Amino acid sequence: MQSFQIKSVSTEISAEIQRKIDFKTKPLGALGMLEKLALQIALIQQKEFPVLNNPHVVVFAADHGLAREGVSKYPSEVTYQMVLNFVRGGAAINVFARQHGIKLTVVDAGVAGDFEQDLPIVHQKVTYGTKNSLQEPAMTLAEVEQCIASGAKVVHEIYQKNGNVIGFGEMGIGNTSAASLLMAKIGKFPIEQCVGRGTGLDEKELQRKSLVLQQVLEKHSNAQTPLEVLASVGGLEIAQIVGGMLQAAENQMIILVDGFIATSAFLVAHALYPAVMDYAIFCHQSDESGHQLMLKYLNAEPLLKLSLRLGEGTGCALAYPLVQAAVNFLNDMASFESAGVSNV
Amino acid sequence: MQSFQIKSVSTEISAEIQRKIDFKTKPLGALGMLEKLALQIALIQQKEFPVLNNPHVVVFAADHGLAREGVSKYPSEVTYQMVLNFVRGGAAINVFARQHGIKLTVVDAGVAGDFEQDLPIVHQKVTYGTKNSLQEPAMTLAEVEQCIASGAKVVHEIYQKNGNVIGFGEMGIGNTSAASLLMAKIGKFPIEQCVGRGTGLDEKELQRKSLVLQQVLEKHSNAQTPLEVLASVGGLEIAQIVGGMLQAAENQMIILVDGFIATSAFLVAHALYPAVMDYAIFCHQSDESGHQLMLKYLNAEPLLKLSLRLGEGTGCALAYPLVQAAVNFLNDMASFESAGVSNV
Repeated sequence: MQSFQIKSVSTEISAEIQRKIDFKTKPLGALGMLEKLALQIALIQQKEFPVLNNPHVVVFAADHGLAREGVSKYPSEVTYQMVLNFVRGGAAINVFARQHGIKLTVVDAGVAGDFEQDLPIVHQKVTYGTKNSLQEPAMTLAEVEQCIASGAKVVHEIYQKNGNVIGFGEMGIGNTSAASLLMAKIGKFPIEQCVGRGTGLDEKELQRKSLVLQQVLEKHSNAQTPLEVLASVGGLEIAQIVGGMLQAAENQMIILVDGFIATSAFLVAHALYPAVMDYAIFCHQSDESGHQLMLKYLNAEPLLKLSLRLGEGTGCALAYPLVQAAVNFLNDMASFESAGVSNV
Repeated sequence: MQSFQIKSVSTEISAEIQRKIDFKTKPLGALGMLEKLALQIALIQQKEFPVLNNPHVVVFAADHGLAREGVSKYPSEVTYQMVLNFVRGGAAINVFARQHGIKLTVVDAGVAGDFEQDLPIVHQKVTYGTKNSLQEPAMTLAEVEQCIASGAKVVHEIYQKNGNVIGFGEMGIGNTSAASLLMAKIGKFPIEQCVGRGTGLDEKELQRKSLVLQQVLEKHSNAQTPLEVLASVGGLEIAQIVGGMLQAAENQMIILVDGFIATSAFLVAHALYPAVMDYAIFCHQSDESGHQLMLKYLNAEPLLKLSLRLGEGTGCALAYPLVQAAVNFLNDMASFESAGVSNV
């Protein structure tokens, strides 16, 4: 596959930034997680006064052959319909992105239907949905590589338009199954810890999903490397997100990680290039049961815990004001000295 | 004291609002806490399309006689200095309020120093700080009543200028002690569960604080009613917040509750008028150790958990975009029907 130049963030200016944070007019550490966030962003940008430019959320959509096994509450058509909803501005991510001045880009990574070419969609469909991973690999390695290149391309274009902060969203009926499988393979978790209710399965449907996923794992027990795993049980939108995240890290952009599915893409990206971690902000902990464990595995501290389970990048958009707040307090708050406030 | 007309919110339109939420293009319940928030706001306003007008944060500042017992890391002068910092726009609350277009009002509720009259401060100082509650009641009942009337007045003026959502912040060296004492008295908690490190006490200083507060409780064991408790161990800024919250509820405004100290004021307001609960949004769970227990006592679910412990209303300002997001999705998201998306 395409290789990426991803360097760990230099911590040379850490002490200087931390001193700046500590001399703001507030008790030491009183802004909690926002202080860590401010330091992280300053280090990513290697700037004492970091700036967020042209924030974007990119939603990658694709269908899943495994959905034919009844692992989701909703029919596959909903992927296509929701893409049109994104285009018309009616989905949750549209509302939240508009609220915060975040630009939304919709990518057809592999939806099982054709969109009119003049719709505001980035058309980079690799196939009409994945194959059914219960029967065969979801994708070929060549398809995975094409996905990674396509995901990287859309992110690089945003970078070239001066964007330096990017959230990754997804839409794909059946994709909590793919995410659970990636989690089980990459994190070496038992499948029961990875499977959840997705869009709202009941107890019986959940058991069925768990059983199907166990069979998929057995089918692909030979898949070992991150790319083989991604090909055998992943998704086209997930693979494009992997490419997008890696490109973002190469470009030293801030990566906003959304929920369960986006984090499963991050797991793959991280397995390929561990340094991607330095650029990642984990926006929220989803209500999907495996997400908490996934975040723990990554030693990631999510900004929000609102029991969301919607995807689309909604967690990125909702957390964005906190990211902005971290930058703003670092840049705009007075110091003890400048404000004439007694320090201890 | 002044009486308030606070009615419980009518739930007559609950089912209708819930149906509207459920038919948005998302899986049932997938927006988690934002869905509960949207319902609450629609019920407060009794509107299918609620609106947030002229959001405000009001910061009430005052000094504490008990600070002379060494219960805080910072000297009392910092209260005065921080008010000037608010006026000049350099504090954290200034930064976050600006970020979200929230108007900030600073109130001198009882700072131990005189401000120039032409500064943009609401001058409603009741006394130059409370008395030392280790030796005598912090306030007289007459002072508490004056505080409640003053706090109510500033909120009513905001209401008359069309404000319908208001956050309550505070600044007062020593006020985590007052809040801990209110919590212990009103919630009947042992004092050790109520005392925390405030602005950053070490282990030894914490033990000292705990000992002092235990003595204060013994001194005022006769105080029983919420107003007696508030007078004996509370604070001027806390008492003004109590009045402000009650006035906001009377006016059917949305009340944004900040951290440990603001929530202690809410405890008093709630003990006086339980229906105030219907109007309250709990913005965050502070890092101050007693806050979690306080929220549990109120059966309140905080929106954010960012390990903040700064006060000033910063939690209100940081949570405000989530409140706005709840309103926005309710008003602006497409329904399954309008978007042509298959529902289950």
